[in-house]
Amino acid sequence: MLIVMKPSATAAEVEAVAEKIRSLGLAPHPIPGAERVAIGITGNKGPLDPALSDGLSGIADTIRVSQPWKLVSREVKAEDTVIDLGDGVRLGGPSIVVMAGPCSVESREQVLETARAVKALGATLLRGGAWKPRTSPYEFQGLAEEGLKLLAEARDATGLKVVTEVMDAETLPLVAEYADLIQIGARNMQNFSLLRKVAATNKPVLLKRGPSATIKEWLMAAEYLLAGGNYQVALCERGIRTFESMTRNTLDLNAVPVLKQLTHLPVVVDPSHGIGLRAHVPAMARAGVAAGADGLIVEVHPRPEKALSDGHQSLTPEEFGRLMAQVRVIAGALGRPV
Amino acid sequence: MLIVMKPSATAAEVEAVAEKIRSLGLAPHPIPGAERVAIGITGNKGPLDPALSDGLSGIADTIRVSQPWKLVSREVKAEDTVIDLGDGVRLGGPSIVVMAGPCSVESREQVLETARAVKALGATLLRGGAWKPRTSPYEFQGLAEEGLKLLAEARDATGLKVVTEVMDAETLPLVAEYADLIQIGARNMQNFSLLRKVAATNKPVLLKRGPSATIKEWLMAAEYLLAGGNYQVALCERGIRTFESMTRNTLDLNAVPVLKQLTHLPVVVDPSHGIGLRAHVPAMARAGVAAGADGLIVEVHPRPEKALSDGHQSLTPEEFGRLMAQVRVIAGALGRPV
Amino acid sequence: MLIVMKPSATAAEVEAVAEKIRSLGLAPHPIPGAERVAIGITGNKGPLDPALSDGLSGIADTIRVSQPWKLVSREVKAEDTVIDLGDGVRLGGPSIVVMAGPCSVESREQVLETARAVKALGATLLRGGAWKPRTSPYEFQGLAEEGLKLLAEARDATGLKVVTEVMDAETLPLVAEYADLIQIGARNMQNFSLLRKVAATNKPVLLKRGPSATIKEWLMAAEYLLAGGNYQVALCERGIRTFESMTRNTLDLNAVPVLKQLTHLPVVVDPSHGIGLRAHVPAMARAGVAAGADGLIVEVHPRPEKALSDGHQSLTPEEFGRLMAQVRVIAGALGRPV
Amino acid sequence: MLIVMKPSATAAEVEAVAEKIRSLGLAPHPIPGAERVAIGITGNKGPLDPALSDGLSGIADTIRVSQPWKLVSREVKAEDTVIDLGDGVRLGGPSIVVMAGPCSVESREQVLETARAVKALGATLLRGGAWKPRTSPYEFQGLAEEGLKLLAEARDATGLKVVTEVMDAETLPLVAEYADLIQIGARNMQNFSLLRKVAATNKPVLLKRGPSATIKEWLMAAEYLLAGGNYQVALCERGIRTFESMTRNTLDLNAVPVLKQLTHLPVVVDPSHGIGLRAHVPAMARAGVAAGADGLIVEVHPRPEKALSDGHQSLTPEEFGRLMAQVRVIAGALGRPV
Repeated sequence: MLIVMKPSATAAEVEAVAEKIRSLGLAPHPIPGAERVAIGITGNKGPLDPALSDGLSGIADTIRVSQPWKLVSREVKAEDTVIDLGDGVRLGGPSIVVMAGPCSVESREQVLETARAVKALGATLLRGGAWKPRTSPYEFQGLAEEGLKLLAEARDATGLKVVTEVMDAETLPLVAEYADLIQIGARNMQNFSLLRKVAATNKPVLLKRGPSATIKEWLMAAEYLLAGGNYQVALCERGIRTFESMTRNTLDLNAVPVLKQLTHLPVVVDPSHGIGLRAHVPAMARAGVAAGADGLIVEVHPRPEKALSDGHQSLTPEEFGRLMAQVRVIAGALGRPV
Repeated sequence: MLIVMKPSATAAEVEAVAEKIRSLGLAPHPIPGAERVAIGITGNKGPLDPALSDGLSGIADTIRVSQPWKLVSREVKAEDTVIDLGDGVRLGGPSIVVMAGPCSVESREQVLETARAVKALGATLLRGGAWKPRTSPYEFQGLAEEGLKLLAEARDATGLKVVTEVMDAETLPLVAEYADLIQIGARNMQNFSLLRKVAATNKPVLLKRGPSATIKEWLMAAEYLLAGGNYQVALCERGIRTFESMTRNTLDLNAVPVLKQLTHLPVVVDPSHGIGLRAHVPAMARAGVAAGADGLIVEVHPRPEKALSDGHQSLTPEEFGRLMAQVRVIAGALGRPV
Repeated sequence: MLIVMKPSATAAEVEAVAEKIRSLGLAPHPIPGAERVAIGITGNKGPLDPALSDGLSGIADTIRVSQPWKLVSREVKAEDTVIDLGDGVRLGGPSIVVMAGPCSVESREQVLETARAVKALGATLLRGGAWKPRTSPYEFQGLAEEGLKLLAEARDATGLKVVTEVMDAETLPLVAEYADLIQIGARNMQNFSLLRKVAATNKPVLLKRGPSATIKEWLMAAEYLLAGGNYQVALCERGIRTFESMTRNTLDLNAVPVLKQLTHLPVVVDPSHGIGLRAHVPAMARAGVAAGADGLIVEVHPRPEKALSDGHQSLTPEEFGRLMAQVRVIAGALGRPV
Repeated sequence: MLIVMKPSATAAEVEAVAEKIRSLGLAPHPIPGAERVAIGITGNKGPLDPALSDGLSGIADTIRVSQPWKLVSREVKAEDTVIDLGDGVRLGGPSIVVMAGPCSVESREQVLETARAVKALGATLLRGGAWKPRTSPYEFQGLAEEGLKLLAEARDATGLKVVTEVMDAETLPLVAEYADLIQIGARNMQNFSLLRKVAATNKPVLLKRGPSATIKEWLMAAEYLLAGGNYQVALCERGIRTFESMTRNTLDLNAVPVLKQLTHLPVVVDPSHGIGLRAHVPAMARAGVAAGADGLIVEVHPRPEKALSDGHQSLTPEEFGRLMAQVRVIAGALGRPV
């Protein structure tokens, strides 16, 4: 259930409602809104007694939430969540936010060269993995903290914000220190222990969809973050697993309009992992924006053929420049700046 | 293998090559091109002896075809196939071709009303099923020949071309008589007997992807049509089956750029069956065009809530008008008229 | 809805009920039972008026059918359907029925040699394709009618019954003439035109599951056969399509107990296509019987390495002999003869 | 590459080989065998120089490993790994090991009652979750350490060994203290950080297959454990995600013979999660044993209708007793005790 407070409600009135909820053994979740506060209620089994609001002032409305996801739902918060990453970079607003960079941080030169190139071409975030979840224990596993430092150096040099993946609770404090946006990888989407700990950092989060996660499971994973008090969450579609073997994954753009209807959270598309074939990344980036995505995350490497991971799906800066031109045209057609 | 004739090659030279191929127990497939003829060779096990062309004149080049699909391949024919449906409707050329209409033909009024509406809004083909493949034997199975006649009447009234599905060999002559573009439905994609018979009609064909067909299987199904002498084939992506249950199917837009690279055949996208949710059809139509599709096929019904089939995914004419406006913007951004 | 007649009901009483049903614009389906007749009713939208049976005699009970499938349902017919193929071969009874033979009929010698071998080892049906649905138009497509004649010759020589696949309506009369059990292949499971025509032959049918068909769709396809008047239908699980590429398909043995609960029709398992790897066919055959299958269909070829199709999944007669020994042990443990 | 030492090789000879490998910048992995030691080599890119063994004594053979998985491969270790859990419970040997118990530990009474019941019926391990990975943050999350203590109390009372799931690195020391066999759940199969830490505990591990993991990915996840020095690893098939919605998952028994061929590790089947329907768990348990599984893990609850999780797939003790009788019959037919 959701209690919507009047725009004129005082902090004391909000707290009185929260206290009443706690007194019933339930959890209140005050939800920030542009004009008024709403309070989600979780912990109940079955419908709540509407009499719960008796004797309380400042309440505008009481809404029953029909879905298993609560705080991520548009029923609970109709207006889009906009994640402010600082310096004017706002994910979930009118502008399409583009994140670009190498799969893995490999060296100082590689990161700085890539960062300068993608910055010049219009990206506003730099992506790059310091720890890499690899199928095989014998493959390159990332530069670890050294990688984070190189990302930070590239941020200082270019003004780009940094998005990078956290692999586990142990390295979360480090990642949270360096990242502007913490990525939870596809394989960790249902790592509920990690979700709870990332929620507690209160840093913006990019939650990738698990390769065989349903949209419902994905929203429930995001719910772990919001229920943990972190509302700055974006969802990233990166391809699902199907029977098709000609593409690395099947980028599921159907998820974009479905999510935009169900949730107020921003939606980002990763065409690089999604289709996994360099030649086709631009087409899927265009399609993602046309489907309504709020952002893109794209792998770019100065010399893809020498990349330690994912070279076959990384664009050169030159190719990325052409992609940006195409994305601008599609976004412009929809009235969205890039 | 593929033998490419010189632009100056005479009909006699082409025939001499074909005769030589036949003399080796193989099948020659002359392939029409804008400037020159090529001859595909099938029936061989393993690579052919390049000496095959010794003593023959008019040959420009001999190309080994590396894929299991031959005649549909861009290796064999680099230039796009354009299907001329008459009256300036050309599928596979620069213009995005839009096909629209009801799932099933239900009545004279329904078809004519829909045809007039979609024509006014920019569609150039009318879609509508006269025989409907239904999961249950107890559901509406279509108006049969009466449905074809109503489609023809709507064509006469509006100038729209007609695309309609053939269910079996028995009714193929009737369908071929009335349709401008014969649709082979998803469930019949690998009905090889039917493919051979449709090839023999020499009418343009719209081959839908089977709900769990790989791209390779789909191209091989198209190969049945081309090997049967019919080169006027378009491929229609209409959603694949995955674990996701929130959408009817998972429209696989990854297939669009992959196909455009592998084959010279036009690619059409069906967002209505693909996502199966009325509210999201426009987003997927936009994304399909942005991904590079040559055409769209969209379900439109004057009163979707009363449709005998697929009402939940059919647009009203008004909604279709809004979709067309959005599609025009995306297509325009890519330099393609609609 | 289902009307169950008393064991003592006369033919006139049954006919009076059927006539009443027809008078309401619905279709009566008399269903043969060991002790009494039941009459399925289809064609209604929504629940029927129980007053339908007023004034009619001989009625024992009136049952509402809750599932979209009707005539195939155990709600409608609780007792197992047993298909009598003649000479004591009964599919769906206590005995496990084993069908074996080559993927394709290739030559007189191959068929006769295989037939004699599998007969000696305990098979009671000979399998073999005369028309082969092949992904590529350039692959071996079968011996056609000549293949059927060779199967018949092998039947005469060994006493084995013959199961073979029908590809289309055109060749159905021929197949129905030669086959004891008509196989509908996986790709034709939802070829509704063909299902209707096969129903009309009134020959026993083996309906294979489509590679991505849900159990519900499969039961609805069988419903087409029963609604067409043919109750001698067995269902054959042959593997579904998943993301796993190490096996040809994923044999879905979960379907066996689910089907045995939902339907009265016999269930057969095809481990050869299911897993597609010769070394593992015996393990899946054992597992299929342990899961409750009523029969097995196994590919056997005297020289698999020379087979024109599916050699990689065909057993030698010697391997088939070892499989039979294992299957007998598992079946024996469950109290079922082979 | 794999270096197989002679049965007569001394410890010094083995160490000399390992030292040589380390001197090349590679990692030696001595692999225990019944009669002789083998040393796996990882860390190389591409094939190793056979001259590596020049000047070293005690080497019997040098084997190239063709697969991406090394230490888990039968190429590297032909004989079955048997995990000795103590008191005669050996997983991977001739006996089928049955693990049974509730999904979640809920109370002292529930655990003790279940443990006594399943012990009396032939189980040798008690299963039960103390931390539960739940799709929703609002569902029962387990009793945590209190749950582990109850499992230990049930072990003391019955002599059953305990298998329980570890959720994260934080609680791993606790789980490792109480468990005889540490379960890594399906969602954590590719939690590589956790795999490394579990490897370091050197406790026996039950590694569940991810719901959409390929067999290759699963073997690579196990490789993380073995590469981390822990050879006591069993693999547990628990159902994959497909399009079928009538069952909770699709238990993939094809994986059983495939794994038994590729790896020396024991294979366990979980029919409860696999099919997810109480009525069909026994059929899938029988089929799993018939397919060649070395063990079963089955959910049993004294009052499934009151279970806090997974009640719909839990058996009553009475139903579990009937399952055990059926499993004994199948196992006996294969010459395996239970």
